[in-house]
Amino acid sequence: MSLDRRYGVLFEPVRIGPHTARNRFWQTPHAIGYGTDNPGSQGAYRATKAEGGWGVVFTEATSIAPEVDKTPAPLSRLWDQGDVRNLRHVVESIHEHGALAGIELEYHSSIGYMTEGRGLNARGVVPVAGQSGLPVGYAATCADMDLEDIHEIQDLHVEAALRAVDAGFDLLTFHCGHAASLLAHFLIPYYNTRTDEYGGSFENRARFTRETLTKVRAAVGPGVAVGLRFGADTLDDLVGIGERGMHADGEAPLFIEHLDDLVDYWDLVIGAYDWGQDAQSSRTASENHEKPYVGHLKKHTTKPVVNVGRFNSPDTMVDVIRAQQCDFIGAARASISDPFLPEKVRTGRIDDIRECIGCNICVSRDMGTNRIQCTQNATSGEEFRRGWHPELFTKAANADNDVLVVGAGPAGMECAMVLGRRGMRNVHLVDAEPVIGGSLNWITRLPGRQEWRRLIEYREHQLAKLDNVTTILNTELTADEILDYGASIIVLAVGSHYERADVNPFGRRPTDFLAALGESLLTPEDVLVHGKPVGDSVVIFDTDGYFVGPGLAELFAKQGRHVRIVTPAETVGHYTKMTMEYTRLRADLRRLGVEVIPQTTITAAEAGTVTLSSADGTQILSTDSVVHVGQRVAHDSLYRQLRSRRSEWGEMDVTAIYQVGDCVRPNFIADAIFSGHRLAREIDQPDPTRQLPFVRERRIILGTEDDFQVGARATQPR
Amino acid sequence: MSLDRRYGVLFEPVRIGPHTARNRFWQTPHAIGYGTDNPGSQGAYRATKAEGGWGVVFTEATSIAPEVDKTPAPLSRLWDQGDVRNLRHVVESIHEHGALAGIELEYHSSIGYMTEGRGLNARGVVPVAGQSGLPVGYAATCADMDLEDIHEIQDLHVEAALRAVDAGFDLLTFHCGHAASLLAHFLIPYYNTRTDEYGGSFENRARFTRETLTKVRAAVGPGVAVGLRFGADTLDDLVGIGERGMHADGEAPLFIEHLDDLVDYWDLVIGAYDWGQDAQSSRTASENHEKPYVGHLKKHTTKPVVNVGRFNSPDTMVDVIRAQQCDFIGAARASISDPFLPEKVRTGRIDDIRECIGCNICVSRDMGTNRIQCTQNATSGEEFRRGWHPELFTKAANADNDVLVVGAGPAGMECAMVLGRRGMRNVHLVDAEPVIGGSLNWITRLPGRQEWRRLIEYREHQLAKLDNVTTILNTELTADEILDYGASIIVLAVGSHYERADVNPFGRRPTDFLAALGESLLTPEDVLVHGKPVGDSVVIFDTDGYFVGPGLAELFAKQGRHVRIVTPAETVGHYTKMTMEYTRLRADLRRLGVEVIPQTTITAAEAGTVTLSSADGTQILSTDSVVHVGQRVAHDSLYRQLRSRRSEWGEMDVTAIYQVGDCVRPNFIADAIFSGHRLAREIDQPDPTRQLPFVRERRIILGTEDDFQVGARATQPR
Repeated sequence: MSLDRRYGVLFEPVRIGPHTARNRFWQTPHAIGYGTDNPGSQGAYRATKAEGGWGVVFTEATSIAPEVDKTPAPLSRLWDQGDVRNLRHVVESIHEHGALAGIELEYHSSIGYMTEGRGLNARGVVPVAGQSGLPVGYAATCADMDLEDIHEIQDLHVEAALRAVDAGFDLLTFHCGHAASLLAHFLIPYYNTRTDEYGGSFENRARFTRETLTKVRAAVGPGVAVGLRFGADTLDDLVGIGERGMHADGEAPLFIEHLDDLVDYWDLVIGAYDWGQDAQSSRTASENHEKPYVGHLKKHTTKPVVNVGRFNSPDTMVDVIRAQQCDFIGAARASISDPFLPEKVRTGRIDDIRECIGCNICVSRDMGTNRIQCTQNATSGEEFRRGWHPELFTKAANADNDVLVVGAGPAGMECAMVLGRRGMRNVHLVDAEPVIGGSLNWITRLPGRQEWRRLIEYREHQLAKLDNVTTILNTELTADEILDYGASIIVLAVGSHYERADVNPFGRRPTDFLAALGESLLTPEDVLVHGKPVGDSVVIFDTDGYFVGPGLAELFAKQGRHVRIVTPAETVGHYTKMTMEYTRLRADLRRLGVEVIPQTTITAAEAGTVTLSSADGTQILSTDSVVHVGQRVAHDSLYRQLRSRRSEWGEMDVTAIYQVGDCVRPNFIADAIFSGHRLAREIDQPDPTRQLPFVRERRIILGTEDDFQVGARATQPR
Repeated sequence: MSLDRRYGVLFEPVRIGPHTARNRFWQTPHAIGYGTDNPGSQGAYRATKAEGGWGVVFTEATSIAPEVDKTPAPLSRLWDQGDVRNLRHVVESIHEHGALAGIELEYHSSIGYMTEGRGLNARGVVPVAGQSGLPVGYAATCADMDLEDIHEIQDLHVEAALRAVDAGFDLLTFHCGHAASLLAHFLIPYYNTRTDEYGGSFENRARFTRETLTKVRAAVGPGVAVGLRFGADTLDDLVGIGERGMHADGEAPLFIEHLDDLVDYWDLVIGAYDWGQDAQSSRTASENHEKPYVGHLKKHTTKPVVNVGRFNSPDTMVDVIRAQQCDFIGAARASISDPFLPEKVRTGRIDDIRECIGCNICVSRDMGTNRIQCTQNATSGEEFRRGWHPELFTKAANADNDVLVVGAGPAGMECAMVLGRRGMRNVHLVDAEPVIGGSLNWITRLPGRQEWRRLIEYREHQLAKLDNVTTILNTELTADEILDYGASIIVLAVGSHYERADVNPFGRRPTDFLAALGESLLTPEDVLVHGKPVGDSVVIFDTDGYFVGPGLAELFAKQGRHVRIVTPAETVGHYTKMTMEYTRLRADLRRLGVEVIPQTTITAAEAGTVTLSSADGTQILSTDSVVHVGQRVAHDSLYRQLRSRRSEWGEMDVTAIYQVGDCVRPNFIADAIFSGHRLAREIDQPDPTRQLPFVRERRIILGTEDDFQVGARATQPR
């Protein structure tokens, strides 16, 4: 297959200062939880993007000096020669595949009060606690800056830029977006209330950036491209900083014109310290959602412009290029979900693109100072430490086996697909339902979760291409039937369900009193799978804490019902703080009239009423229906049955029975998919029930490069 | 000086299984934020304890397998041969100084939903979300366990124990305390609702531990001591798990008797998942505060018993040993504050002991998944990465200088003390007040903060011993007087104050409207330093978020005033969640009738009233007084003046002017002390205004041991 002519424009080379990108695909800076202290993982992750065809590949926000960083977040640093060595490896890994390598440099200001370098001398545009605007951990303020400080901080930028050049980077982006760096803080009136020549007028507020870039350019010379990641709109008061911010119809065009002579490119973003507005989930933002803010700005610059907006569709990409909205298709999430997106477009395999679903699990991992994880792409972050390639699969050593995968939900679909790619003789994916997808079929009926259907669609399409995989629907198998199926390897992926009344994980008291509610007690599946009737007034009792409770509330409220959500957690849907969906979600619930009752539990129930208890006392609510979004219960009984009959396996020619996904341990969808993928990757190992050791990048006493290879002795348990 | 006879009992050798400890000082397991991935820091930190005379030195809670850990917390792991190599280095570092080396092994259960090893297959005693009882991040549950699982998990304990032996540890502690591990979860009815032979009766609930220890002992043989860290009381419902827990007057003695044949020692602790009850701050717990729980348990065992309770006083230590309360003086915090505590007792230097103040900054760093920090001991955690020894100071290369330290608060006291120890010719510590201590003098007037006076007392005593340091009080110096003082090096440590009305860091709106309150508007210093009158009703407006606002509330309420605290933060005194003081603090405020109004700000004021605003609307409160616990303002004008007069320095023979502590950047007391210490340690470096690079343990591409030495090229900025 080959490039469709209409996508040709995406593969035009584009000049960026002294360099030329081979195409218009630009992987924007984004953190992956490996920083610079895990150079193997950082390098392999970025190299995979370069191999997948991205013309420009960035690393991530990088602290320029020990006085500021985001510890404990495992972000990149460019403080010393050790960092230079590690980043040189990353750059070489990117260059090897023909992409340009970029780095985003940042003086984070006092975004964190605890830093690896003790935060001595951390300075801010003005000495206000919580400089970043983030919730104030403790009112430690940053230090004030006089002219001497300003010059010193500018010099820190120059020194870091020189180290970046030393490491081999082609593009140096200075962060002036997400209101996260000192450049942005100088620029934005919300932060900058200085009264000297660096505050007040627009020119004064832009002075710090102008001077810094001028010094940097003089130092790095003409061989490297220098650009700005510019937050062109810091949004309204709800999710941003309102009238005191930067706005696309205000100073943003001025800023671009004012700095245009000093930059080689513009990477345009939106949002203030809540960068989840730039990376909005699919609940609130569709493809190219930033157009209303950045769509008109290209005319203010003579330099190439990068836009983002969870671009998945090459047709949309062509449209925005042709419309002169931008020169580069920027992507973080779409590139995480499919590192080979450009290559698939180039080779005419559009229908193989694994499109981002916009769930923001990746965002939540960053917020949790953890490693990256992607729901769609189980290999994300595992390129180095497990040696997984997103597109390459080796033939299994035991490929001459037939495998039965029971259950076609997230884990089962993924497992069957990878087993198919690994060349197993026959893979049968069997499900009791008339469609594949398992729980995703009801989950995607929740408001704003429709795009998650791509999890099914991608796999359904891929499974159809695999001759050795057969999907069999409407078939529920008993333990006997499974043993008797004729497959030597059996994988159970039979999922979980929301318990009707079990244990409240907050305080671990039983909730079996809910049974007194009779037919008016419902689970999420009762509502969305079985279509049981819901009354005019509903109480949702949510101990789950993610999207299901608030999603049902939204659904019911839009149907005109009176909805209250009760949760023992500090806030409703608290995990959505991690996916950065919370602010808009909470506002939507308020707008829809949903009453949220947090830090409260249900302690009694009878037909038509529930009793609520909190530190403030008890109250009784009348309600027609109660939906319990409680714990999920693994469907593990089939596995336990089969395992207890191990003595029969031999006569049935069954050699192994495994389980994956929620039926082991109900968890995120991303975890279920990972679990299915992992088993299939390691199906031919001596003991696939335990994962193979993975490389752990760390200092090892007397360590050598050999210690950081897949299978190294250092990684072995004995 | 030599050992006082009355302390002789503390230095009796004690047999522990096959080993003999040289004395009764036992450094209990505690995390320091370096884990096993920073073996240099872990090793040097523990080696310093051994050198300081502790007879037994433990590392920290250590994950036994990739299926469970506490990522992103940088805790220890004993998963593979790389960990063995790193821990072997730690053990050797401890042995070098004659102490026994111990490790605490733990299957954390599903305490974290995100783990480095992806948490595949993480199992719990019963499949309930938030197995640890910690706030549920998201209702991922752990996997259930059948008999086969139980045996597999027991084998994981055995395998980890063998790795620990391989690394050279003398003592293996299995964690059955703080309700944090699977052993504890099996034991405690709150967690264990199993109905098989591992649930129900006491014997059934203890079975998992019995079987595990039996297997471990058989595997490791007689050469290693095996013990339990046992949570003897999980406390009441407020801070623990109430009637469904383990209690010192309930099953705890039974458990000790039941397991006594299998262990070589008992390390007794209290508290459930809120281990801040074991490590209670000095606000609520004094020395030996666990006696009511553990004081009577020794008679139930024939093995040595370790107690903790922030023991600082050798007299108390002798008392508890003589009273047969325990055999070992266990300590985490007291050993952090003074690693040389045993050695100072042994050599008769009791008055040199740097006593723990119980502020729990160390705890908060652990809670924040960060490096350890100690308010009293600035060298804690810096032994390796900066090469700092808590008791050894080299003579400064520029010791032939006279130094003037202006300001005798935390930073100034520390800086003068370290400069004195480094042999500077003359150090003058000058303060405007009649006493040293600066802000600590008013801070320690807050309820429960009296013990923090030890910060002053220790330094006052040490300063008095230094012939080259002179403290001069009641002397406020102007810029002219400072330049003219006759010192060639000047250090400003002039602190900060709480602003009366400046900027609310939440939303960054000015609060100058508060001025309309006139005399009824107060700052913390107005109340506690200047003794300004406070009315019968008080509103505290707290944007600071730590102990000052709640401390004033407590003070006023005890004085019979009507108190309300308004804060824009999610909760009052939110940093006390990190120091694990929050639960008791909040309960105390409730008990005292203090009304807490969170997520609310003050938006207007006039004489006698303030207007509150929140997402729910506005309200007007009448009040006699408003205390604004807002931002702190650095006293940096003196430095700016002096710096602007640099041209005059030469004629005055002034070569350098530095600033330390809050006058640079208001921060934690621990940071102020660190800042003063750091400058004095590096006073003879080319540019003491910037800290020297420190060693960063990480994987470095093609790294060698040379990269992990103080001053290594890898750590240099260029």
